[in-house]
Amino acid sequence: MSNSLLPYDQLCLRAREVRLIRDMGSTLGWDQETYLPPSGVAWRADQLSWLGAEAHRRFTAPEVGDWIAAAEADPARAAENEAEAELHQANLREWRHDYDLATRLPVALVEEAAQAQAHAKEAWVAARQSSDFSLFAPHLGKLIDISRRKADCWGYETCAYDALLNTYERGTRSDKLEILFNDLRKDLVPLVAEATSHPRSPEDLLAGHYAVEKQQAFNREVAEAVGFDFQAGRIDTTVHPFCTDLGPCDVRLTTRYDESDFRSSLFGVLHEAGHGLYEQGLPPGFRGQPAGDSVSLGVHESQSRLWENHVGRSLAFWEIWLPRAAAHFPHLSRLTPQAMYLAVNHAKRSMIRVEADEVTYDLHIMLRFEIERGIFSGDLTVQDIPGEWNARFHQLMGLAVPSDSQGCLQDIHWSLGGFGYFPTYSLGNLNAAHLFAAAQRQDPAISPALAQGDYAPLLGWLRTQIHQQGRRHLPGDLITRAAGAPVSSEAMLTHLRTRYLS
Amino acid sequence: MSNSLLPYDQLCLRAREVRLIRDMGSTLGWDQETYLPPSGVAWRADQLSWLGAEAHRRFTAPEVGDWIAAAEADPARAAENEAEAELHQANLREWRHDYDLATRLPVALVEEAAQAQAHAKEAWVAARQSSDFSLFAPHLGKLIDISRRKADCWGYETCAYDALLNTYERGTRSDKLEILFNDLRKDLVPLVAEATSHPRSPEDLLAGHYAVEKQQAFNREVAEAVGFDFQAGRIDTTVHPFCTDLGPCDVRLTTRYDESDFRSSLFGVLHEAGHGLYEQGLPPGFRGQPAGDSVSLGVHESQSRLWENHVGRSLAFWEIWLPRAAAHFPHLSRLTPQAMYLAVNHAKRSMIRVEADEVTYDLHIMLRFEIERGIFSGDLTVQDIPGEWNARFHQLMGLAVPSDSQGCLQDIHWSLGGFGYFPTYSLGNLNAAHLFAAAQRQDPAISPALAQGDYAPLLGWLRTQIHQQGRRHLPGDLITRAAGAPVSSEAMLTHLRTRYLS
Repeated sequence: MSNSLLPYDQLCLRAREVRLIRDMGSTLGWDQETYLPPSGVAWRADQLSWLGAEAHRRFTAPEVGDWIAAAEADPARAAENEAEAELHQANLREWRHDYDLATRLPVALVEEAAQAQAHAKEAWVAARQSSDFSLFAPHLGKLIDISRRKADCWGYETCAYDALLNTYERGTRSDKLEILFNDLRKDLVPLVAEATSHPRSPEDLLAGHYAVEKQQAFNREVAEAVGFDFQAGRIDTTVHPFCTDLGPCDVRLTTRYDESDFRSSLFGVLHEAGHGLYEQGLPPGFRGQPAGDSVSLGVHESQSRLWENHVGRSLAFWEIWLPRAAAHFPHLSRLTPQAMYLAVNHAKRSMIRVEADEVTYDLHIMLRFEIERGIFSGDLTVQDIPGEWNARFHQLMGLAVPSDSQGCLQDIHWSLGGFGYFPTYSLGNLNAAHLFAAAQRQDPAISPALAQGDYAPLLGWLRTQIHQQGRRHLPGDLITRAAGAPVSSEAMLTHLRTRYLS
Repeated sequence: MSNSLLPYDQLCLRAREVRLIRDMGSTLGWDQETYLPPSGVAWRADQLSWLGAEAHRRFTAPEVGDWIAAAEADPARAAENEAEAELHQANLREWRHDYDLATRLPVALVEEAAQAQAHAKEAWVAARQSSDFSLFAPHLGKLIDISRRKADCWGYETCAYDALLNTYERGTRSDKLEILFNDLRKDLVPLVAEATSHPRSPEDLLAGHYAVEKQQAFNREVAEAVGFDFQAGRIDTTVHPFCTDLGPCDVRLTTRYDESDFRSSLFGVLHEAGHGLYEQGLPPGFRGQPAGDSVSLGVHESQSRLWENHVGRSLAFWEIWLPRAAAHFPHLSRLTPQAMYLAVNHAKRSMIRVEADEVTYDLHIMLRFEIERGIFSGDLTVQDIPGEWNARFHQLMGLAVPSDSQGCLQDIHWSLGGFGYFPTYSLGNLNAAHLFAAAQRQDPAISPALAQGDYAPLLGWLRTQIHQQGRRHLPGDLITRAAGAPVSSEAMLTHLRTRYLS
């Protein structure tokens, strides 16, 4: 029966099946992070690799290439009108990209990478524990070599690093990123110096006990208020918070709790809920099609940062939410919204990226971006990394790195072969500020609504401009179309100045 | 590479893969019962049917039949010694059985059954709600017809019902079951009359508040004490308690909580932990092979009933556990172990099977067994069911059935096409008593250990005699070998008399 379908429709069917399989993997992965008994890990690993292989085999099958080529040759054939034809064009563009990425790597290279990553991750854990870079260095060298060979398979215009960047942020080039980041850096370094020079946080006013169940109740109120749909999602507890979408109506957030400080779980939930709102806002009925998928890491991160930092850490937010927080944690009623606003916006230079505040965070990323570029351009060798890291860190942050475990060994990403991933974090921050400013400019109802604790106008704007677009446009184009201008460091710097220097 | 393997080894590989897939289905099913957000159901249903189809396709593939036939022709070929040859024989016997069962049904009949069940379940829910049997009757008729056709495909010696029974309890014949149940019934009916005639339960001594977290803590202590391994298992909360094994080291129990009565969750956990101990005790390294699988529903239920009723409701148990329960629920310190023993062993005639105590439970099953036999022998039609049910229920239990929703519409099983399932509950009860008596007889250390709260000797006996046997023997043979005699009603009746009449 299915042989009589048009190639485009065949693609839709196959893509849906592949996504169905991948979503099972996500579900089993979620279970592994949340509830799997320790002894169940080995069987689970076999299941995940079985699902991975099945999805890969189905997506990279020769007939898929034939269907894409046939549909490309006559893209309007399966479309009923112009809007549908446009949608099909976008789907085909993205399927072509994904198919080429997936099929250009020889199986032997994929297997070599998986093996090398497994060993590298283990070596990284040991190296970080003993702060001994030499344990990790040979593995890192191997992973860099593999990534370089992958880049060669995928192809690139000017530098291998771009091919890697493109697996996370389609259409991004490192020379463009460099300009963007340099712009930011120029103003950010003095801004950090000023913002961290005068301690203004009444931290001790927050001291008290925050029972997990009360944090959970408060977090849920907040997540519901910003629009997270608990009929199609939930929040669980994990060591490392994340958001994962297990299906078109099944988005799961996780967070962790510190009973001496509610901020970690609350802002964790707001961050992950930002990711979750994006997933819940994708156009329904397109699961498996690029048109129904999130567009890139840098756009995804913009959604999480927007809700976490621009909404959740604003004074307007705490005007509304301080009394509600105090209903759960009565000792907070001693604070004013202004005091709480200061307490949740405290800038401080620090060693560890994942603990950094929104002012210093991007300096951590720039360091990693520069080192990754240096490695793939050939300017840096693996052996250079610790020294370069420490020198550049001191230059950017003004702090001496006491040990590699607090320096170049702190992140897991490289041990997973994730070169080119880090820049998407800063891109996310820049996009968040850029979009938030544009949204308020374009829809004058958004700011007054936020002051009333009404998040629907802002969410509505994001739904239309970002979420419902899926992968119809490349990430950079999507941001430009939504905000009316390409992303720059301007909105971010304005935001940080307003929040930290006034 | 795998083409150079012996047929037996091919079978092992394929069976492992099929089990890996089925275990993913179990995991996704567990998630659906525990944590899946309501809107995620549709996508999940698609995933479950995809996995079901993949597992079925792989197990029923023609090459599997060829491998079985080739291995049957030369069963010792892949075995290194006699013990291994015996194991292979057992695996082949069971693979042959499973393969024939799975391949003898035409695909059209399987699809017709799935369709009919989906409609029947919906109709059953509506019929039960309005207590209107006529809503369910046409669907039930259809399911009976389908089951009869399935039985014809599978084949049977004397009656179609036996073919259905055999899908749950391999090697069982309804005429043998009838003798067993009639034996039980003869003494059970007067025993019920006597046991329910004098109320002896000091129920109100239990009145009090049982916070969920405290019940959870106490239940966990008990489950750990009887040997349930929380490194390879866990307990969650569901509306309907169950036990499911998601992998060789991943067994998940569920229970539900009533904050006015701890008994429902505790005995629920002990019951499901009994199932779980069986799964955790299966021989490791054989996942997917019959030798590594549980043998039948009637043996599975014997394990749950043994721990729930014979261990958990015994006086010896409460001598140990009353003080520990009182540590969580201080008001229980008013009770003596004897009073608690009476409170957890209260016989009462009632309408609903799932709420029945261990004295009256089997009368509910006999009723269903008789009606199922009547239907498949042709003595009863669908229209006869309500009348027959009510008349026989009155005869067995001495109670008038006020409505079909409390009568023949109370169970979900028939709406799922599960004819022949009910008898395994009573078989489980009989097996439990039979095995528990044999264990104590064979190993004199068991009873004194139980009196000390040491469950290891009993568990050790069950591990050796039952769990580690997998499906090496047919269920009836397994019980006979373990207990030294075929199952009869003797041990069960002795147990009930001792507990309820003395």
